[in-house]
Amino acid sequence: MISRTMQQQVNSSSIIRAMFEEGKRLSALYGADNVYDFSLGNPNVEPPAEVKQAIMDILNEENSTTVHGYMNNSGFEDVRGAIAASLNQRFATGFAADNILMTVGAAGGLNVIFKTLLNPEDEVLTFAPFFGEYRNYVQNYQGQLIVVSPNTKDFQPNLEELKEKISPRTKAVLINSPNNPTGVVYSAETIAALVDILRAKQEEYGTVIYLIGDEPYRELAYDQVEVPYLTKYYENTIVGYSYSKSLSLPGERIGYLVIPREAADYENLIAAANIANRILGFVNAPSLFQRVIAKCLDAQVNLDSYNRNRELLYNALVSYGYQCIKPEGAFYLFIKTPLENDLEFCTLAKSKNILIVPGTSFACPGYARIAYCVAYETIERALPGFEALINEVSWASA
Amino acid sequence: MISRTMQQQVNSSSIIRAMFEEGKRLSALYGADNVYDFSLGNPNVEPPAEVKQAIMDILNEENSTTVHGYMNNSGFEDVRGAIAASLNQRFATGFAADNILMTVGAAGGLNVIFKTLLNPEDEVLTFAPFFGEYRNYVQNYQGQLIVVSPNTKDFQPNLEELKEKISPRTKAVLINSPNNPTGVVYSAETIAALVDILRAKQEEYGTVIYLIGDEPYRELAYDQVEVPYLTKYYENTIVGYSYSKSLSLPGERIGYLVIPREAADYENLIAAANIANRILGFVNAPSLFQRVIAKCLDAQVNLDSYNRNRELLYNALVSYGYQCIKPEGAFYLFIKTPLENDLEFCTLAKSKNILIVPGTSFACPGYARIAYCVAYETIERALPGFEALINEVSWASA
Repeated sequence: MISRTMQQQVNSSSIIRAMFEEGKRLSALYGADNVYDFSLGNPNVEPPAEVKQAIMDILNEENSTTVHGYMNNSGFEDVRGAIAASLNQRFATGFAADNILMTVGAAGGLNVIFKTLLNPEDEVLTFAPFFGEYRNYVQNYQGQLIVVSPNTKDFQPNLEELKEKISPRTKAVLINSPNNPTGVVYSAETIAALVDILRAKQEEYGTVIYLIGDEPYRELAYDQVEVPYLTKYYENTIVGYSYSKSLSLPGERIGYLVIPREAADYENLIAAANIANRILGFVNAPSLFQRVIAKCLDAQVNLDSYNRNRELLYNALVSYGYQCIKPEGAFYLFIKTPLENDLEFCTLAKSKNILIVPGTSFACPGYARIAYCVAYETIERALPGFEALINEVSWASA
Repeated sequence: MISRTMQQQVNSSSIIRAMFEEGKRLSALYGADNVYDFSLGNPNVEPPAEVKQAIMDILNEENSTTVHGYMNNSGFEDVRGAIAASLNQRFATGFAADNILMTVGAAGGLNVIFKTLLNPEDEVLTFAPFFGEYRNYVQNYQGQLIVVSPNTKDFQPNLEELKEKISPRTKAVLINSPNNPTGVVYSAETIAALVDILRAKQEEYGTVIYLIGDEPYRELAYDQVEVPYLTKYYENTIVGYSYSKSLSLPGERIGYLVIPREAADYENLIAAANIANRILGFVNAPSLFQRVIAKCLDAQVNLDSYNRNRELLYNALVSYGYQCIKPEGAFYLFIKTPLENDLEFCTLAKSKNILIVPGTSFACPGYARIAYCVAYETIERALPGFEALINEVSWASA
């Protein structure tokens, strides 16, 4: 009775659900403390104190029918203005409230922009490895996700292949930096080279190619690495942002899109995105949390905590012989699996009560993602298992 | 550059936007107090005190990474269980947590269920007058909205025409009671007759036809009128609910779907709806407000306030000579426009600083919707304008 596309989704998602069930089964069997779940990007660091204070202040000081009421589908104008001002201060941009559209997280924002842009069969290019939901978001609007294969040397995007894959049907190129699942940050040089390609292809085909940045991990960058602000490199840029990770509010579904005035067809883009937000059923981003984040623009979760995890896990894994890029951002570590078959390796890891996600899920077989947004102690307790794993695999293949 | 369908949306929505702009222009010209905006269903009654108390208690007592964190895409299990228990107590149903899926308001819920059910060209039937967004929600999934024409005698659904319009492609019948825009509540007799037709047609075509109830106005019912609980009448029922009106939280985007175990293909329905919630970019209903509503299941906005408005407006309009059904629910009054052309009449109303929505927007020309979720004083001040309007129209046509 359900639709054909959803029947396929149900069938294929049963694998992931099986993994969840397995985690629950293991927890019941060995105790939650003895199961090391690195499978989910659910922040373990609590929201900064400013969030609770902001909620209290708003409830005590502001009009409740306004705080919880409808507003323009794009969001409260004062909130959008505050975000624009904050971006301008940080990145020397020139945004106004009209360039910001409040969304139900970054996932909501990406759906709004794909609904806005895509005709059936339009192509969106992205770089493997990538967050698997991108495929669904594009297919929701009958678009085609075209995947550029991974550059496993340093996981910067494979620009040579990008050049080959851009076609007259390419409506957008979607990038995600800091990256899920690799933790890699795209450098300023990479971005500059990428947008040179986009400009040349726009010229060649007489089309507009939007660059869409999915940036939920922007604030999770380590060692003072610079995360280039995309609108400064390329006029046809749209940025999707979320407070899920920067303020540890993933359940609250609050984020925004930036649609700069210099983007091609700006007036239509902003009008259509406003309507898309409404007709897709989001209607507006949750109202209280719009007002909360306007009061928390300078707040941030405790990054030291993620950084400690990163150092512990990366250094230990490398010392055991694992190969991986040291992540510069996000809270993921992407290892080359000591077994060529990443699915087999992840199954083997499960036998040590370690839950990690096969790279195949990110269109990058032979790798696996470890989400280190967990308690430090969980990593400490899991390390012997990781060490045993690589040793067993080496013995077996020796 | 935007998609063809969104270009059409932008073009047609400019009429509504023009109305908004006109309202703003009038407010600037005459002062907000002298412009009577009855165009929006934005509750003016404040949320019950329990809402603020619940937020405070949750922030003070519960773990912040849980309160604001990811959970199962269907929502917190304890919240879903509490809602099921509350429904069971009120309606003698037999729901469990597994029958409830938390959604981003009723709009989010309808999109989730249409994504779940519809193949391209599948038909969804609904009764005019209806909330115009239904057309968009169905078209989001390439479905066809088939409209049964209005029964302007009493605005109960036109069941004879329903019989004729149900086809082998009919996947669902969508009803909305208490109704936007008429305020009419579908009686138990109506529902019984409606589901008899659905059962007969299922038999005739060998298909499953879901009855989808959109029920954001369920708690806004006056004079102790009964609003039948649909799952008790028909096994293949799905109910969409929202707290937007019952707790005056429209901006917070919190509601749920009820998918009963006896519905055809239940296991797939619930699995697919869970996935649809995720891949459409909702991910989950806002987490704090999930927890809030679980603590406010017995709370309700002050209905007396809407009832006073209803009595004042209805009695006055009828005394001036307007024709309309006395609404039994919601906060709308649907008048026959004294001019046959409802668009012209609404434009004329604007000249009295009265903003109301043409029935044409609800597929019911010759009528207009007055949203009386405004201050009592606004209605009082607007009444002379309403009286003058009908008199002018009568003189002109005499």
